[in-house]
This record gives sequence, structure tokens and C-alpha cells, in this order.
Amino acid sequence: MDYNFSERVKSLKPSAIREILKNSSAPGVIPLSAGNPAPDAFPYEAIEAISQRLLADTPIEALQYSVTEGYQPLREHLRAYMAQKHHVGAEEDEILITSGAQQVMDLLTKTLLNEGDTVLCEAPSFIGSLNTFRSYRAKLCGVPMEADGVSVQALERALETEANIKYFYTIPNFQNPSGVTMSLEKRQRVYELCRDHNVLILEDNPYGDLRFAGEDLPSIKSFDGEGAVVYAGSFSKVVSPGMRVGYAIGPREVVQKMVVCKQGEDVHSNIWAQIVCHRFMTEYDYEAHLERLRGIYRRKAGVLQEAMERYFRPLVSWSPFEGGLFAWCTLPEGVDMLDFVKRAAERKACVVPGTAFLTDESGACQSFRVNFSTPTDEQLREGIRILGELAREMAGQPAPRIS
Amino acid sequence: MDYNFSERVKSLKPSAIREILKNSSAPGVIPLSAGNPAPDAFPYEAIEAISQRLLADTPIEALQYSVTEGYQPLREHLRAYMAQKHHVGAEEDEILITSGAQQVMDLLTKTLLNEGDTVLCEAPSFIGSLNTFRSYRAKLCGVPMEADGVSVQALERALETEANIKYFYTIPNFQNPSGVTMSLEKRQRVYELCRDHNVLILEDNPYGDLRFAGEDLPSIKSFDGEGAVVYAGSFSKVVSPGMRVGYAIGPREVVQKMVVCKQGEDVHSNIWAQIVCHRFMTEYDYEAHLERLRGIYRRKAGVLQEAMERYFRPLVSWSPFEGGLFAWCTLPEGVDMLDFVKRAAERKACVVPGTAFLTDESGACQSFRVNFSTPTDEQLREGIRILGELAREMAGQPAPRIS
Repeated sequence: MDYNFSERVKSLKPSAIREILKNSSAPGVIPLSAGNPAPDAFPYEAIEAISQRLLADTPIEALQYSVTEGYQPLREHLRAYMAQKHHVGAEEDEILITSGAQQVMDLLTKTLLNEGDTVLCEAPSFIGSLNTFRSYRAKLCGVPMEADGVSVQALERALETEANIKYFYTIPNFQNPSGVTMSLEKRQRVYELCRDHNVLILEDNPYGDLRFAGEDLPSIKSFDGEGAVVYAGSFSKVVSPGMRVGYAIGPREVVQKMVVCKQGEDVHSNIWAQIVCHRFMTEYDYEAHLERLRGIYRRKAGVLQEAMERYFRPLVSWSPFEGGLFAWCTLPEGVDMLDFVKRAAERKACVVPGTAFLTDESGACQSFRVNFSTPTDEQLREGIRILGELAREMAGQPAPRIS
Repeated sequence: MDYNFSERVKSLKPSAIREILKNSSAPGVIPLSAGNPAPDAFPYEAIEAISQRLLADTPIEALQYSVTEGYQPLREHLRAYMAQKHHVGAEEDEILITSGAQQVMDLLTKTLLNEGDTVLCEAPSFIGSLNTFRSYRAKLCGVPMEADGVSVQALERALETEANIKYFYTIPNFQNPSGVTMSLEKRQRVYELCRDHNVLILEDNPYGDLRFAGEDLPSIKSFDGEGAVVYAGSFSKVVSPGMRVGYAIGPREVVQKMVVCKQGEDVHSNIWAQIVCHRFMTEYDYEAHLERLRGIYRRKAGVLQEAMERYFRPLVSWSPFEGGLFAWCTLPEGVDMLDFVKRAAERKACVVPGTAFLTDESGACQSFRVNFSTPTDEQLREGIRILGELAREMAGQPAPRIS
């Protein structure tokens, strides 16, 4: 048989980065490239207790077909919770439970995008989402990041010059990969700009609850009185990613189309997981759980920062971060970043090259992403030591005296 | 905001059938329109025991991120099981675990279809799959069904005259909705015809294990030595639909593209459910479980057939069926089928009008689909009584004497 694939699949290029990272989960490798929640972050005793009771008392509820929109009690609770706690969701908004937040990116793109239409995104941005947009043959237009979030000038220019823009994709809190949090002023300005240009905002907030320093900022969706924002939430980082439960809160007209698309993709999301998330939020002290998670990541981020202070200074710099799971580190000019990442992997310290997060993987980038939630403390220290040593070698600098 | 939806979403028409069925799950309604497994078909004690042990012993395994291809032990077991029991899967084939078999339809379409390309399908066929194909703007070309499966002459004509055919979609066992099983001769002929025309076959087999009469026939995939068939399997009817676990077995080159598409849709399927399916297949007597299911559906089909003999004869006829969950019933000429279904719903007996399963919903059809797995025995008898009575009224015939 000769297989005649669709244009969208033919256009997906093999990734040079995939080649570099192909051994990142091999035994003995220090997993600084992953994005897994820390093993002690899972509320597994609660999940076990909820699941046991659910399957003993009302198994059919957890095992039978359900509706595409999602488990009704979870939808209702999330709606009230997000409105009360985060001012997310207006009367005109609808909520859809998805198979992880990744499916929000997929369904919104399916709902809005014709091949060749433009998606504006932060540059750099989350590779998983960019690949979803690419799978619909989006034209990706990257808007540069600054220390306080996306460049508003560049966003305005893009909104005025790009054709057929369907939405602007942003991760305002502890952005993946840059770690940057968008300032309040920029959030307001981004909202107004997009609304005025009749361009939707896709606000992806997987890490919002994982702030371990500084003050919470209002989400862009909280300004939304005109149905201009689709908000993507996720239980992956706060309960369990293996459950695959996320949600979209957005204008009813848009979400209703997403429901139709979801029906064709997977009918509905795993119902056991939806019920477990609902009961965990309502029968346990959810706020105390989030506080515990923040404690875990605050501590792990501290281990990373201490190691970076010790092994990276002054050659390798990093952006400040107040939450999330990643640090964004930058090599000095003259050190070949891709070669650095490749050689680091050979020494069993796997990080993700910054070019992976660009709209054009062949673009220039001196940065790499380090995850601090997956490795143990020892792995973190050892990984950063390896990276620091390699950077000095490649920059032709002597090893510093370490007391 | 003005929302500018994608062409694919704009082209999805509102369904007249949805309107008729909108009250089908209201209290007091006899659910002859659904397709849910019978409540006593769920192996819920086993699932409870497996889940409890899994979450107590290795919770992180069930809750952490996993790989897109699926839980490796389940993939390996299914591969061996399907090869040994059903001769499904060659050396060159690959297996992908999906979020229900619906996602197989979605991913294969995404992998192969450009807008406007043709999908050949049986007429009538499963509405859920047809809607998935439509969401990619497929041109659907229906090939008429006969008592022993699709018309081979019509299939050959379609293969020769239609442009850009990407695959032929078929449900060879207890087809939804017609109940028809494709004969062995036709399976072989369909395989050869499609292969010779370089057109893939998408073989959907959700009900294969639910044969309660007659002899099993080999799947089309079992003839496949040339990578011409993608086989879609599902745990929905044999373990639990709420878990959303299905799988594709097909040519490696095709399945690898489907994996890339799946990564963009939902990263991976719920891992708890995949592990539960694996352990249920390997630690319990799976064959005895399937035999138990066949017993349940044999009995329920008997209740339906007895009721049809009593209340439908001689006005309403039905196609013979040896498995699955549905009976395909046909009204005499002169009775308006859509009006019949609407009036039946008013009398609280909900069935699905046959036109729902056509490539063109406005086509002519005198049939309707009756499900016998969801209703209780009493509901089945009462539902068929209501339908029979209504048919006689609408045909202007007197009520028969029933002893």
C-alpha cells in the first residue's frame, strides 16, 4: 500500500530536538527536561479513598457513558469556584470539561482555524500547544517576551499587520518556558488590544495555583465582559496529569462549538477522573492542598536556585520566577546552545533547548529550560553542577574555586 | 465580539434528529434510543479490586504523565491477544491506545484526509463516526447494505468512480444500526477490492465479542498482509465506556502519524483506565467474562424478539441479528417514519430514526433503531408494545387480538 497522508500531517516536520531528547527517560539520566509534578505532590491517599468509595457505592456512575460537556457536578462546582476565587466566568460563559488542557488548545483551534489562519503566540511558548496549532496548519506568529510579559508594542503591531488572526495564545503566570509573569498593566492592555481588534485570547493557566513567591495577579479572563477570552484550566499540576482532566471557560457560542468537536474526538472525558476531581475539590480541604503544593515547589525551587547560585554564576544567567515548574537559563554568547544541550545529555543531564519553544525551531536562542519538579534534590544539585561545569568548559573558563 | 468560526465548524448542520431525541433521557422515558451497556454487564467488583490495589500500591504509576502510545503492558498484551485469538496484527503493524474507539476514527481521519476527500461508508452507518468524518469536511459516499453486508458491486463502482478516496469505513459485525454481519466471502472480496484500489479499510469492531448466536467470522484485518487495514477495537462494550479506552492496530507508518496527532489532542489517555483494562484482561478470567456478557445480551435480545413477535407482527419487520446491542426495524410503506418516531417519543418510547444514520439525513428511510441493552426487560416489553400500537394506528389497522 502507498499511504497518501493529509497535507496537515505531511507538513509536520521531524524535530531535531526530539533526536536530542530521545534518551531523556533512560535509566541514570537526570530528568531536568520533563514537566512532571513532583511525586510527593499527588494527593494519592485522598484519591484512593474517593475512588474506593465511588467504585463500591455507585460503580455504574463511574463506568457508564456520560455527556460530552462533562460531569455536571464538577462543571457547576468549577463554575462557582472559579467565579468566586478568580473572577473567571461571566453569565454568558459556558464550561466544558476536557481530556487535559491540551484538548482545550485542540478544540478551540478546530473551532476557529482554517488552514493558513494566524495564531499569535508568545515567543518562546509551550511546545505542546504550538504543535497542536501546527497540526491545524496555523501560521504561527511569535510576539517577543519581555521581563514583565509579552511586548505590547509588538503585539499591537502584529494585530495590525497580520491577516486572519484567530486568537492570541498566552500563559500569563510563570510562562512555560520563560518563567515570566505578565504584569497587571500588561494584562489589561493585552485584553483591550485583542478585544478592540476582535481577536480572541486563549489564556492558558496550568500553573496559576503554584505561586510560591510574590502576589497573585488577576487573570485576563477576569476583565472579560465581552466574551473575548477562552480560559484553559487544568488539574494536571494540582491533582494528577495521568487523569487527563482540564476545562475551558469561554463564551457560550464558542464553547458550544467546542462541545460538538469534542463529541467527534472522544465522546466525553474519563468519568471516574472527573468525579474524583469533583469530590477532591468539595470533600477535602482543597486550599490546604494547594498550599501544601506551593510549599513543595517553593522548597524545590530553593534547591535549584541555590545550586544555580553555586554552579552557574557568573557564566549562566536565569530569569527570576515566582512559581511554576521551570527555570529559563541563558548561556553566554559564544557557547553553542544546541551543542551544549547535546553534550549535557551525553553527561546524563537532560534539559530542553530554547529553540524547541520558538515558532521557528531554526531560530537563534541562547537559552535552555530546566525543570525542578521532577528530579530529586540530589539530582537537581548534580544536574546543575554538570551543566555549570560544561558551560565553563565550552566558554573556555577555568573551574571556580568552590569552598 | 464577533466570532469567526472555521469552515469545518460552520459546515456542521444542526440536526433535526437531535431535536426529536432531546428528551430521550428525561425521567419516565423508555430508553430504546441509547447504546449503553446493560448495568449488569460491568465487571465492577473486579474494577474496584484492581483500582484499590493499584492506588494503594503504586499510585504514582496511575496518576503521573504517561506516553502517547499508551500503557506499554496493555499494548503488549493486546498485541499478543489479538494476534492469537483473532489473527489481528502483523509484524509491520503498530498498536496505539486511544480515548475510546471514537478517537481512532478521529485520528485516522486527521492523518489521511484533506478537506473534500472522500470517505466510503456503509449506508446506513454509525452516526458518531459519520459526524467525526464530517468534522474534517469529508465527502461521505454511502454504499448500500445488503442482508450479508455491504453491496460489493456498489463498493466496486464507488472505488472506480469516486475521487480521492482515503478509506472505506465498515463495521462488519452486528453493524450499527442495521445489525447486519458481513459474510466471509464479502470480507475477503472487500479486502481485495480496497487493497487493489490502494484504499485503506477502517474496520470498526466494537461488538465483535458480543455474538450470542451463530459462528464467529474472521475479521477483515486477519487477511491483511499488505498494511491495508486499520482495526479499531474498544473496551466500551466489554468493560466500561466511561473509562474511554479503545485502540488502533494498523500499519506502523500510519499509526505513527496517528500518535503525533494524538499528542496534540490529549497527550495520552487516562492511565488509571489503561492499567485497569490491562489487569482485568490478565489477572481475571477474561474469556469467562465475555461469555457472561454474551449470556446477558442473548437473554435481553430474547426478551426483545419475543416482544417484537407479539406486538410488531405483521406490520413492522426487523432484520435478523446475532449479536451487538441493536435491532433494525422497518415500518410499512405509507407510515411516515419521522412522524412515527416523534409520536413514539411523545408516548415516552424513544427510538432513533433511520435517517440519522444516512450520509444525507434528508434521504428516504422507513427504518428505526431499537436498543435492547439499556432498558430493563419491563421497559423493553412496554416500549415495543407502544411502538407496535402506534404503528397500527398510523397504518389504520385495528389492534390484533392478543391472548
